[in-house]
Parts: sequence; C-alpha cells; structure tokens
Amino acid sequence: MDVKHDHHQLNEEEIWIHENHAPDVRLALKGKILASERSPYQTMVVGETRTLGRFFTLNGYLQVTEADEFIYHEMIVHPALAVNPQIRRVLIIGGGDGGTAREICRYPKIEQIDLVEIDEMVVRLCREHLPQTAAGFANPRLNLIIGDGLDHMANIPDNSYDLILVDSTDPIGPGEGLFSLDFYRDCHRVLDSEGIMINQLEGAFYAGDFYEMSRAYVKLQEIFPIAKVFGFNMPTYASGYWYFGFASKKFDPLLDQRAAAWERLNIDTRYYNSDIHRAAFALPNYVRRKLAAALRDQ
Amino acid sequence: MDVKHDHHQLNEEEIWIHENHAPDVRLALKGKILASERSPYQTMVVGETRTLGRFFTLNGYLQVTEADEFIYHEMIVHPALAVNPQIRRVLIIGGGDGGTAREICRYPKIEQIDLVEIDEMVVRLCREHLPQTAAGFANPRLNLIIGDGLDHMANIPDNSYDLILVDSTDPIGPGEGLFSLDFYRDCHRVLDSEGIMINQLEGAFYAGDFYEMSRAYVKLQEIFPIAKVFGFNMPTYASGYWYFGFASKKFDPLLDQRAAAWERLNIDTRYYNSDIHRAAFALPNYVRRKLAAALRDQ
Repeated sequence: MDVKHDHHQLNEEEIWIHENHAPDVRLALKGKILASERSPYQTMVVGETRTLGRFFTLNGYLQVTEADEFIYHEMIVHPALAVNPQIRRVLIIGGGDGGTAREICRYPKIEQIDLVEIDEMVVRLCREHLPQTAAGFANPRLNLIIGDGLDHMANIPDNSYDLILVDSTDPIGPGEGLFSLDFYRDCHRVLDSEGIMINQLEGAFYAGDFYEMSRAYVKLQEIFPIAKVFGFNMPTYASGYWYFGFASKKFDPLLDQRAAAWERLNIDTRYYNSDIHRAAFALPNYVRRKLAAALRDQ
Repeated sequence: MDVKHDHHQLNEEEIWIHENHAPDVRLALKGKILASERSPYQTMVVGETRTLGRFFTLNGYLQVTEADEFIYHEMIVHPALAVNPQIRRVLIIGGGDGGTAREICRYPKIEQIDLVEIDEMVVRLCREHLPQTAAGFANPRLNLIIGDGLDHMANIPDNSYDLILVDSTDPIGPGEGLFSLDFYRDCHRVLDSEGIMINQLEGAFYAGDFYEMSRAYVKLQEIFPIAKVFGFNMPTYASGYWYFGFASKKFDPLLDQRAAAWERLNIDTRYYNSDIHRAAFALPNYVRRKLAAALRDQ
C-alpha cells in the first residue's frame, strides 16, 4: 500500500487523504488530522472520519480504522487459539496499536504475553488517540518491550513460546526484516513443538501486494512442515481482502480445529466464528494457482 | 454506491474518477473515458485503466471492471448449478453486460437461456467495448429480450424456469423494482418446484448498502422456504465484499451441494471452487446479527 497525504498539517478542517492500491486505484478518506508525528523509524498520522471513526497510518500506510480493526485483530488471534487451546505463552512482534494484545487478553488461561514493538511513539500515539484499539495495553499480563523484534528473537531460548503473532507493517521500513527467512527460522526455533506462528501476509489481488505475499509464503513453506494462508474481508485494505499465514510444527488449521472447545469459551467476537475459521482457508482458484506457481518458480 | 465523475467528456487524457462508498470514503480510478452515453433509462460510461482494464458504469455506479468481473459472474452462476445439476431453463433479469450469460453458457446441458434487459444501449455498449464480458451474447442458445423484467415476469406461465438470476443494478432507477416483494413473488411463481433464485444483494459493511440488503433479505425470507445470503471478495465494490441471495423452494445450498458432480464437469473457473462454495455461506458475526435484527424488526 502506498499512501500519500496531500496535507499533513494539523487542522480542524476535513480534508481528503488517499492511499494508492495501485498507481491508478486509490482509496480516499475524508476527515480531520488529529496528530502527525515523526519518530526515528517512521512517520505516523492519526485522523478522524465520520464513517470509519479514527484512523492511524504508518509511513502513510493505513494500519487501523476504528470501524474495521476488529476484523484484522480477531483474525490474527482467534484461529490459532481455536486450534490449540493449550496456548499459554504468546509473543507478539509489532502490534504497537494494541489491538492484537486486546484480543489475546480475552483468554484468561494465557499466562505470558510479550509484545515487542520497535517504536515507542506508536504505542504512545495509539494509547492517546485510539483507546478502543490500545485497550490491550491496560492488561496487567501484557509485558511491553520496546525494541527490535529481530534482535529480540536472537536472544530468546529455544521452545519459549506456544504462539508467535507477527503483526507487522508492509515489508518496507522497520517491517522488512519480519518477512525474511532468518526471522522465520528464529520463529521456528523459539516455538515449542506444538507452536503456531501467524503472520501478516498482504493481499492477493493487486500485483504489488501478491509479490510480497508469495515471497513470504515460499519461505514459510520452506521452514514449517505446515504452512497455509487464510483470508478475511478487510474493507479499508487494498482489494478489501487480506491474508495471514498459519505456520505450525504440528497442527493443521482445519483438521485440528477444536470448534466446540473454542465455542465453550464464550468469547464474544464480531467477525470470527467457527464457520468463518473454516471459510478463511478456502482460497479462490486464482490465489491457489498463483501460490502454486510461486512455489514452482522459486 | 454513489459515483461522481468529475469529467464526463470523451478525451485521451487519463483522469481520476471516483465512486463514493460512504460520504467520506471513496474508491478512485485513473483512466481515460472511451464512451459516455445517455439512454431513456440511465447514463453509462466506459473507461479504461491500466491496472483494472476497462470499466463500465451505470448512473455513475461501477458495474464491471475487466480485472475482477470474473468473480461476480462466477459467483452469481456456479453455486446454483453445483446444487442442482438438473437445471435446464434459465432466466436472467438484467445482466446486459453479458457476463452472467457467458458463465451460464459454459454448461452444455442448459437448454434455454432467456435474458431480459431493459436497456438495449447497455448491450450495445458492452458488446462494443467489453468483449471479454459480452462474450455470452455470441452463444446461439441465448435468447436476448429487450424489455422490462417486471412486465415480462407477469406474463410468464407458472413453473417455467429452473433458475432465475437477478443480475440487477443497485435498487434505484430501473433496478428498483427488482428488490420488491411483488417481483420476488413472481419469481417464486414462475420457478419450478426445484427452482432456485440468485439475486444481487449489495454489501453488508457500509450502512447504506446494508439497508438495501436487509430489506431484500426480509422479503426473500417471507416468500421462499429457504433463503440465505452468500458473499465473495469483489475488490472494486464498496468494502471489497458483496453478497447474493440464494432462495429456493427445495434445495439448501450447503446440505444439497453436489461438489463431486460439479467438479466432474471440469469448468475452469478462476474464483469459484467447491471450498469457496461452502465458505461463501459463512457469515461474520456482525452480518449474522444485523440480518437477525432485520428479521426481528420488520
């Protein structure tokens, strides 16, 4: 995604800002800008629209709108927990807006939640302006570590986690290393034998997005015995459909789905349910074929 | 969908045109305008973009882009044929771009294909500028009737069709009557006892789209013993996800899915497959709840 803001200045007027999904396809939002900051890592903007509520961008890439962030954050968390209800130790890489942590904190039995975010300013800005999403930071089980996820991984002992959630930006800027083979190797190493990794995989419709998705998919397939992709309708992301990877040493996301066990937890989700779990792994033929071609051509 | 074209004049320059998904959310395409016409029923524009190929609008509403029309047209046709392989007599209401007819014509055993389009100029413009989509019109089995679908229905004897495909525009202008209780009653009447109706139902995310979807869903539920909705990722439509209704006198779209029989036909689809069939009927919780509320509040 390539976002260009025509106007970055703080003001009370509503302005149109847009994000390019392709050079000739854009999503445009009208709203007012509430904050615009630059950290050592990236630029960030918080704005507010009438229809989508508040939104948050990093390097001009749309990360969160209050109207649809529940979809992304439910889908990065709940499928793994519905496959392995024994997950107790969770590592979140990125996720500085707090939405992924919020969803993980809905499981009372999870004991350890480490969140490694490289940019303290993301956390500060989201806590200030996006309380709905940043709610996860208020949970006492959450251990917030400000640091580089890549460096952090290198120092973690083997078999330290049951679940890793890679809640990254697009693979440019600080998010780039989170799409690398070395990083996935480290994830595999620090995961328990029953471990699962879920990672942000971009979209499949526009060529630029699929290029990144296919490169990451090929690497996941190389490192994990089980590596699949699943998708969900994300209205404000390019093409309206986004994908995560599901990589595991042991569990198949469909054969090992524990639907009844998950439903007994009574977690009141707004997008995810057991039917959506299965549906998310059904890929259109054009996506199946492009992924198969990527594996063949690597 | 509310589209506003800033510039309608024919020219060779690329311009940005946009469609409002909400008052403050827009999809914008950059391209050149190839044709701009006004019929007694509506205005229509054909343009061309680099990423999405040619596109077609009616009353400023985006109907077709060459890059993703295969998704809409596969999903309006193949689920019904995978449920009842005995379908022989098909009525298409609307569908003047020819894409739905193209997909139906891939079934050699279908004997009768009547397509009732109110606006001859739509057919003419699509045949001229969108040959990929209008390919269906070349099939000798297709019986093109230029006329009002509502009037046409009233004169059809009972039990005349096995399948009705309502390939309508949004419920304003000439498409409005195709969302009415009387029209659905007529569809029920002219369908055989094994009949299926599939109809365009708008989106569920933006309030304006869901208002129309819920009104139509309530009517379908009133008239058909089986009435469900199913969705698919349509990148250029509002929110990236669009819905059809599946209404039948006899068949449940999941319990009666004949996946193996459909797969033996070897129809080379780019979006639809048997997994996608099942997945399409899985609704996110927020859609389930809004539809249940619409039934309660009617």
